[in-house]
Amino acid sequence: MQVSEQALRQLVVDLLQAHGAPPDAARLQADLLIEAELRGLPSHGVQRLPRLLARIGNGLADPVATGDHHWRRTAFLEVDGQRALGPVALMAAMEALLPAAHRAGLALAAIRNSNHIGMLAYYAEAAARRGVIGIVLSTSEALVHPFGGTEAMLGTNPVAIGIPTGEVPFVLDLASSAVSMGKIHHHALTGEALAPGWAVDAAGAPTTDAQAAKTGAIAPFGGAKGYGLGLAFELMVALLAGSDLAPEVRGTLDAVHPASKGDLLILLDPGADAGVTARLGAYLDALRHSRPADPGRPVAVPGDGMRARRAAALRDGIDVPDSLLNDLRTLRAA
Amino acid sequence: MQVSEQALRQLVVDLLQAHGAPPDAARLQADLLIEAELRGLPSHGVQRLPRLLARIGNGLADPVATGDHHWRRTAFLEVDGQRALGPVALMAAMEALLPAAHRAGLALAAIRNSNHIGMLAYYAEAAARRGVIGIVLSTSEALVHPFGGTEAMLGTNPVAIGIPTGEVPFVLDLASSAVSMGKIHHHALTGEALAPGWAVDAAGAPTTDAQAAKTGAIAPFGGAKGYGLGLAFELMVALLAGSDLAPEVRGTLDAVHPASKGDLLILLDPGADAGVTARLGAYLDALRHSRPADPGRPVAVPGDGMRARRAAALRDGIDVPDSLLNDLRTLRAA
Repeated sequence: MQVSEQALRQLVVDLLQAHGAPPDAARLQADLLIEAELRGLPSHGVQRLPRLLARIGNGLADPVATGDHHWRRTAFLEVDGQRALGPVALMAAMEALLPAAHRAGLALAAIRNSNHIGMLAYYAEAAARRGVIGIVLSTSEALVHPFGGTEAMLGTNPVAIGIPTGEVPFVLDLASSAVSMGKIHHHALTGEALAPGWAVDAAGAPTTDAQAAKTGAIAPFGGAKGYGLGLAFELMVALLAGSDLAPEVRGTLDAVHPASKGDLLILLDPGADAGVTARLGAYLDALRHSRPADPGRPVAVPGDGMRARRAAALRDGIDVPDSLLNDLRTLRAA
Repeated sequence: MQVSEQALRQLVVDLLQAHGAPPDAARLQADLLIEAELRGLPSHGVQRLPRLLARIGNGLADPVATGDHHWRRTAFLEVDGQRALGPVALMAAMEALLPAAHRAGLALAAIRNSNHIGMLAYYAEAAARRGVIGIVLSTSEALVHPFGGTEAMLGTNPVAIGIPTGEVPFVLDLASSAVSMGKIHHHALTGEALAPGWAVDAAGAPTTDAQAAKTGAIAPFGGAKGYGLGLAFELMVALLAGSDLAPEVRGTLDAVHPASKGDLLILLDPGADAGVTARLGAYLDALRHSRPADPGRPVAVPGDGMRARRAAALRDGIDVPDSLLNDLRTLRAA
């Protein structure tokens, strides 16, 4: 069902406030979910809300908490998330981090014990709009097999990088898996076959059956190199945040365990003038105008597709599955 | 010709000292080249030496310089490399950075105007052996086409990450291109065909002809994701180091232009106890013992192959092409 961005946003805010979230926290969590919907990433949109509300009900997410801050070093902020909503803990850390990043040139927040932070692009873009480079890392349950292996041993370990590049910031957001588990679940729902190479089944055999892949493992992106990067992220997050490694992580895909993954936010202050960021913007335009492989498909820069989808969704509304929308409306009426 | 590590090292040191390098600088630059040879990366080994010596002769590399340091912020070291040898500028920056990283929790050196830093794993591993996470980025001439494009617009933009994980550090080192330009040149020499998807020719058509690829462009690794990461590295280095973007970069592949690429070194001090790094080491062992796709090929962790090749080369010697070894020996005798 097509629903306007404003109506969907209000529905999410109402539900979060009804579950005890203060207005600011409700607005922030809603903004993250709505932005994911607008950008064509429904796996990180309102379909996450019923589980999040259940986690609040079960005491696994505290909608009032913002995280306990401890400066381990002058530019290294250690955050005990106190079971806060993911975006609330992360944005509170970003606010605390900005003055340190301006002073030191760069600063790091390492967060454990907070809930799912959702679409990482949200934070990377927020940093870039404040004039600093933002790098965001997060871990998850073991869903990805090592290159040359067949067992789920690594998280999907996404990374987002936001960079000031003139008027429109550069925003990259990707999982270090070949596809997201959300996409596997979506294919399982629709019965569509997976692309070869995306996943193995529980016995470790390559499969294009999404149902079989759900109990198997997803491939890392980009072969040995993507595996190496995902593994480096896994180790860095666990080491700096003191969070669990993938085989022990719980709580981003269920409503019964505390969240034991970790998140990192690194801000770097380039201290550069507008001329330098404009030079980056001009380079990105040169990329867009460089010779494409397919004359009908111009070269894109990460974030271009997302901005086009967002503009269309703001105009046409957001398509939410009827069953999900009905569930959320019933919940609000209760 | 098979040559012992000690003999080859002495040859390189002698040549560098004969070209005006002080003993410390000669030993460091030689160690970098020899380590690349030992680890099976001849493209970053002694074959780089004749060009480096020519650069010294042409005044493009100053074997005495170590870089001019300016703290832009308390943990952000700006380095004018003063045309120093790449490893000399980078290791001097690392020494200056370590106290800041301990104090702030993390620190950044942004280097411009220094020569080629070679195999990045060298620095990432050095950092990890000092107990800190080391992230190294470097840029290059435009050699890589964007995803969906056909023109060389990006550098090969390698990244290395070193992480303390108990006795043996985790060391990842990869180019964000599908293959290195060194490998393309090696295939051109031997006449071996490239794998499909590695490169396009000057007209933008896919090619497996290495000779044609030399004037074309290399594909990014991992499709759109690898392109996005390589591009993010390109922008970050140029923005933080004030160095050139790929289309303007010169001086890492020639002996006539000053080097205008940039390098970044980020050190993060986890401040963790030995128990935590040992936990990471145990996890890496669990990965190695997880179920492989091919029963005859156990799962590897980045760095495993490199360490095995290094041990073999220390025992059996290093294989250097006769013509190259003769050239170097002739140069020494001159």
